[in-house]
Amino acid sequence: MRRPPEVIAFQGERGAFSEEATRKLCSADVEVLPCVRFEDLFRGLKEGRATGAIVPIENTLAGSVHENYDHLVNFELPIVAETNVRIVHNLIALKGVKFSQIKRVFSHPVALNQCLDFFAKNPAVERIPFYDTAGSVKMIKEEGLTDAAGIASAIAAQIYDAHILRRSIESDRQNFTRFFLLRTPEYARRNPVRVPEGTQWKTSLVFSTRNIPGALFRALSAFALRDLNLMKIESRPLRGKPWEYLFYLDFLGRFDSPVAQNALNHLRETADFLRILGCYPKGA
Amino acid sequence: MRRPPEVIAFQGERGAFSEEATRKLCSADVEVLPCVRFEDLFRGLKEGRATGAIVPIENTLAGSVHENYDHLVNFELPIVAETNVRIVHNLIALKGVKFSQIKRVFSHPVALNQCLDFFAKNPAVERIPFYDTAGSVKMIKEEGLTDAAGIASAIAAQIYDAHILRRSIESDRQNFTRFFLLRTPEYARRNPVRVPEGTQWKTSLVFSTRNIPGALFRALSAFALRDLNLMKIESRPLRGKPWEYLFYLDFLGRFDSPVAQNALNHLRETADFLRILGCYPKGA
Repeated sequence: MRRPPEVIAFQGERGAFSEEATRKLCSADVEVLPCVRFEDLFRGLKEGRATGAIVPIENTLAGSVHENYDHLVNFELPIVAETNVRIVHNLIALKGVKFSQIKRVFSHPVALNQCLDFFAKNPAVERIPFYDTAGSVKMIKEEGLTDAAGIASAIAAQIYDAHILRRSIESDRQNFTRFFLLRTPEYARRNPVRVPEGTQWKTSLVFSTRNIPGALFRALSAFALRDLNLMKIESRPLRGKPWEYLFYLDFLGRFDSPVAQNALNHLRETADFLRILGCYPKGA
Repeated sequence: MRRPPEVIAFQGERGAFSEEATRKLCSADVEVLPCVRFEDLFRGLKEGRATGAIVPIENTLAGSVHENYDHLVNFELPIVAETNVRIVHNLIALKGVKFSQIKRVFSHPVALNQCLDFFAKNPAVERIPFYDTAGSVKMIKEEGLTDAAGIASAIAAQIYDAHILRRSIESDRQNFTRFFLLRTPEYARRNPVRVPEGTQWKTSLVFSTRNIPGALFRALSAFALRDLNLMKIESRPLRGKPWEYLFYLDFLGRFDSPVAQNALNHLRETADFLRILGCYPKGA
């Protein structure tokens, strides 16, 4: 019997950087389900229209995506894998079009702004904002524009059968986005992640404490006293609840190891709220 | 003798949310210097083209703006004030234009995406991405478009002498951006901030530690053992330096109080790097 097809939900058009993350985390033959809002992809997975969801969680320039942390807490869909994608912007045009023909460049304003050095060197080229990086290549293809290029991922050039005129035109190469792969709790239970011996694991969790002096210090003692290594800690004020904070925390290790279980029991003594978001092999 | 005019640099067009922050933090008669890149406003202040700079540092949905933390560390321009601006999106058209005439709405894609409920209720209205929220109103004014509206701050309507057709069309009202006002070190020294008795102060700093288990815990002990209350803590992996982390930390209190000085001396014992970014009255 054939396995039912894998369907991975992500936000953005086909060829978005989320699709690069999908290729890194899933097999090559998955179907994809592009979604308009982040909430849609959580809902798509929860309601069975997708078998997995790819979620950007932080970017080295722009910070943590709080909205997706909120969805992780609310939808209770476990993280089973992570990866980091370098945001490489490519100038993409129809096949056969030469660089000298390009008068206009379409892309998302954030991407256009990340390529200002390129535009400074090519002042005759007009910048035109568009919804989406990959969507700009799709539009150029559909409209058959021969005087225009888009700025998008290499995968967008491949998907829309277009041509990369200039590779890696972003001004800052230290631009990475960290993505999570989510599954339903049932899927995660039935398909435990198999990894080579010696693989390091990470556990992500969210907790809150009242903001009394030393509350975070006491919370972190649960990890420090057991030599558990933190990979991330971030506070976020809870709106409407002055003096209360949510914390995002990643530690190195499996949440179900005896030492982590002791640390989590200790943390529960001081935290008002605690949720494990997932336990997954550490990404490269 | 008249005082030389105040010039406040911010990123974006006239009427950007940064200009709302400017009005909250500066007197009404300041001149403004709109800049294209964040780096430009730091440079403008450093090089004397501006007397102050308004910098967005974190947003309740999108997280901390790491790029601006980097500039704060590199340019050494002290924070002297903070404020929170609620991101209210308004539908803005030329005066005399009615809602029923609107066929197209221009704005930054992020703003368009934050108004999806409005577009779901008005499916005949076309969404068109634009560089900038306030810039969309400026363009509609310049082109005299009577079938179009922009989505921007209330201040943009005022600046471009336009009309708010629908107020507060954003889907999520819990969308705030925190802004800092920066000065040169000389200006800050000559013009100490005067505040009413009983005002609470905040100090912002950046430090790094090697990522050995318990390093952060030991660093935080400097504050916890002295009952200094943290308002923010965030880790950021240092690219190219695996296992090293930068931390952003805000605590309640003046950095030059005896207890804070002891805490900072204690922190210096464990931190590889420590920089005070500023000390300022706590915003509302």
